[in-house]
Amino acid sequence: MPTVDASRPSVSLPAVSAVPQAFEPDAFRAQLAALADWICSYYERLPRLPVLSQVAAGDVFAALPPTAPELPEPFDAVLADLDRIVVPGLTHWQSPSFFAYFPANASGPSMLAELLSAALGVQGMLWQTSPACTEVETRMLDWLAEACAWPAVFRAGGKGGGVLQDSASSAGLCALIAAREQATEGASNHTGYTGGLVAYTSSQAHSSLDKAAMLAGIGRANLRKIDVDASFAMVPDTLRAAIAVDRAAGLKPFYVCATVGTTSSLACDPLREIGEICREEGLWLHVDAAMAGSVALLPEQRARFDGLELAASYCFNPHKWLLTNFDCSCFYVADRRALTNALSITPEYLRNEASDSGEVFDYRDWQVPLGRRFRALKLWFVLRGFGLSGLRTLLREHLELACLFGSWVAADPDFELVTPVSLNLVCFRYRGSDAFNRQLQACLNEEGSLFISHTALRGQHVLRLCVGQAATAAQHVENAWHTIRETARRLAHQKDN
Amino acid sequence: MPTVDASRPSVSLPAVSAVPQAFEPDAFRAQLAALADWICSYYERLPRLPVLSQVAAGDVFAALPPTAPELPEPFDAVLADLDRIVVPGLTHWQSPSFFAYFPANASGPSMLAELLSAALGVQGMLWQTSPACTEVETRMLDWLAEACAWPAVFRAGGKGGGVLQDSASSAGLCALIAAREQATEGASNHTGYTGGLVAYTSSQAHSSLDKAAMLAGIGRANLRKIDVDASFAMVPDTLRAAIAVDRAAGLKPFYVCATVGTTSSLACDPLREIGEICREEGLWLHVDAAMAGSVALLPEQRARFDGLELAASYCFNPHKWLLTNFDCSCFYVADRRALTNALSITPEYLRNEASDSGEVFDYRDWQVPLGRRFRALKLWFVLRGFGLSGLRTLLREHLELACLFGSWVAADPDFELVTPVSLNLVCFRYRGSDAFNRQLQACLNEEGSLFISHTALRGQHVLRLCVGQAATAAQHVENAWHTIRETARRLAHQKDN
Repeated sequence: MPTVDASRPSVSLPAVSAVPQAFEPDAFRAQLAALADWICSYYERLPRLPVLSQVAAGDVFAALPPTAPELPEPFDAVLADLDRIVVPGLTHWQSPSFFAYFPANASGPSMLAELLSAALGVQGMLWQTSPACTEVETRMLDWLAEACAWPAVFRAGGKGGGVLQDSASSAGLCALIAAREQATEGASNHTGYTGGLVAYTSSQAHSSLDKAAMLAGIGRANLRKIDVDASFAMVPDTLRAAIAVDRAAGLKPFYVCATVGTTSSLACDPLREIGEICREEGLWLHVDAAMAGSVALLPEQRARFDGLELAASYCFNPHKWLLTNFDCSCFYVADRRALTNALSITPEYLRNEASDSGEVFDYRDWQVPLGRRFRALKLWFVLRGFGLSGLRTLLREHLELACLFGSWVAADPDFELVTPVSLNLVCFRYRGSDAFNRQLQACLNEEGSLFISHTALRGQHVLRLCVGQAATAAQHVENAWHTIRETARRLAHQKDN
Repeated sequence: MPTVDASRPSVSLPAVSAVPQAFEPDAFRAQLAALADWICSYYERLPRLPVLSQVAAGDVFAALPPTAPELPEPFDAVLADLDRIVVPGLTHWQSPSFFAYFPANASGPSMLAELLSAALGVQGMLWQTSPACTEVETRMLDWLAEACAWPAVFRAGGKGGGVLQDSASSAGLCALIAAREQATEGASNHTGYTGGLVAYTSSQAHSSLDKAAMLAGIGRANLRKIDVDASFAMVPDTLRAAIAVDRAAGLKPFYVCATVGTTSSLACDPLREIGEICREEGLWLHVDAAMAGSVALLPEQRARFDGLELAASYCFNPHKWLLTNFDCSCFYVADRRALTNALSITPEYLRNEASDSGEVFDYRDWQVPLGRRFRALKLWFVLRGFGLSGLRTLLREHLELACLFGSWVAADPDFELVTPVSLNLVCFRYRGSDAFNRQLQACLNEEGSLFISHTALRGQHVLRLCVGQAATAAQHVENAWHTIRETARRLAHQKDN
């Protein structure tokens, strides 16, 4: 009897015998051309697609076969499935009528750079593993720091410097860990964290601060949420008082996160006053300007960043409102040693002369993951493709459109602005119940011609319209206002009858 | 006298007055065609470029202008600078003669999918923000689990499921945090971690385990490095004894990380024995198969994964050896609630009906960052582009080439294998001093026709040659051996004279 090899599958499957070519130039060119057509067609159709996906839970999953194909499939079949299965399941963030959350810009130059990054396929964990991946990144972070007039302390020429992270969440976590290590003099990393530290942020800060406190073992209960004023900005005196209470209780304040542009309403904490408290008290100040940071390209908008030189770390996201597709979050520190002390670890297999010399940045020591791709190409392509001047023109256009929308809301007796228009965000509501506003929002988003999101401010359900997607122009904001107003009237009329 | 607006720059800069089009189809097509030419030319030149970059620290940084351009620059200028500034600063990971570290595969289908992901520009933080981004991902993770015959517990149909992370570092951190939360019954997240937990891994585990212990506040000193046997695999009895010692000291063991394919030598810990200890002791078992996981596509290689059904979490990286460019790390959990309990947090502005229903996955609760791009497209394109059969053929080719190289080393009296060839990795050395082997390595890498890295095993400097880059074929491995042998002879001859 023949022996059966149990490690081989019992059924015979079709097989590819020739070793496949991972990169085959002719196929790549042909498929890339087909994909370029597809992308151009997608952008052409985009304004007419329902912005919020209409599929039900499980639809996309069910439409995909239960197992991977044994044999290669033609690229045409993949593109056909892209239209049939994927597109209906997309919420179209690049739609000019996407006004929800915050924007997530994409642009031609950014797409090209992402393709290039994938093609080069370098791993920038160490300087040595691709010096250009590190040094282009350092230069791009310097470019942005210069263009936005950030404090010199964040540039690589001194003790600080910038690095790309995947998100403001990760940047905030790294800042918190660095602060924790500094406050415990390295004991947290070595023998473990044993409690006692207290962090502060405003009640309007992003949820990633809570998440960072959880991940780092600080605990959410030890992240104090300082009250805000009528403009939703942190009240410095309340911060000072909270610090005093904690010190009196024998706890150790160590970290404050101030926000320039909160998620709910783009409120701006007073950086200078908070920074001075941090300096007096010896606390790490992290500034989160994930969304609003891009406006610092505009000289007339820089007042809200006054005091930033008092921060130990700072981040903002070009992947929101600077034509650079996700992920691309700029994270700056005033003292890079404080960061690398907390995040560095060198096994033998990563040791090399360049690192040992201390003359280069190994960006793996500035972030959570070890691996990193060549993301700085996106900033390089975008900054050169549009020029600072082009980016400024786009930002000013969006600011103007948000003001315009805000003026229409303010002038309509059925609606109210919940806060003054802040940058490119309008927080507003129909003068009616929360239930009505929820219904209005659901109705608008289901109808599909636009997508807005909401938040809670002063206990009320508030609609948020953010003008920041790359293709959003006057006509889209006008259409949005028309649709919102007419839908509200229709719903109010139905309710009255 | 006219008043000076201090917020405006004092010098007049050239300005773009028309609002720029972020995506301009004609320009995109033309630039994409130029980039396609560039990429094809790069791949054509790749075999002849020095693999390890030869630039000095600061060269690339200095070659880039100190400030960003005010006006848009033509794409040709960017491509010219790519050749002039960036290419010399690259260590060419896609070179067929890149044998260092572990591979970082790229491929045509993967590049196309990365471009598509950038073009769609969707943000998959919530199911609602693009259902397809979540559900294609869930399906792709299921496809791989099925194709690799991973335990059913990791598939989405039951209590577990898979998610894409940026790296095995981040996956391991998430696993550690979930285990910490489970062990402290949520207290770490809420009131903060206060010490007492102990984690275990082998002395050969990846450095990201130390980093995770630091980040999570566990402390490196509380990550026990269990001894390994002659094959560099963790010794289960030593693990069991260490757990007993810690329990006797009043500490609380909570987490074990076993490795299938260590970074130094691709050693494999005995999963079943370790898993049974974890089950008896009530510990979270995380299995890190970052590099080796891909071979589970081959039925004849699956024995090393025996016992994986005892793991609480598992990860492997298609971005290493599965033709999918970085980042693409597959992370599976047996109980997704254990993960989301540790990482979930819901502010008002992210609440929505679909999430509240509990019927969908919100992958932001499975990872550190909030934002996420549509990475699953890469797996979809790669699995359909090559078919499982094509991927198997490539993996078997690489395994065979590594064996071949190992046989040449073993047959040469001047060289020795430090460990038996494990999968696609050969750990070897010249029979001589560590200093000689270091010199040999430096000489080879500087010469540029190949790039190998090193590790330390049994206190010796060991050379590592890993066959895994997508384009590596027999001729490249033959050339590598020829170059290594001849260079060693030349250096030995110089030394003798």
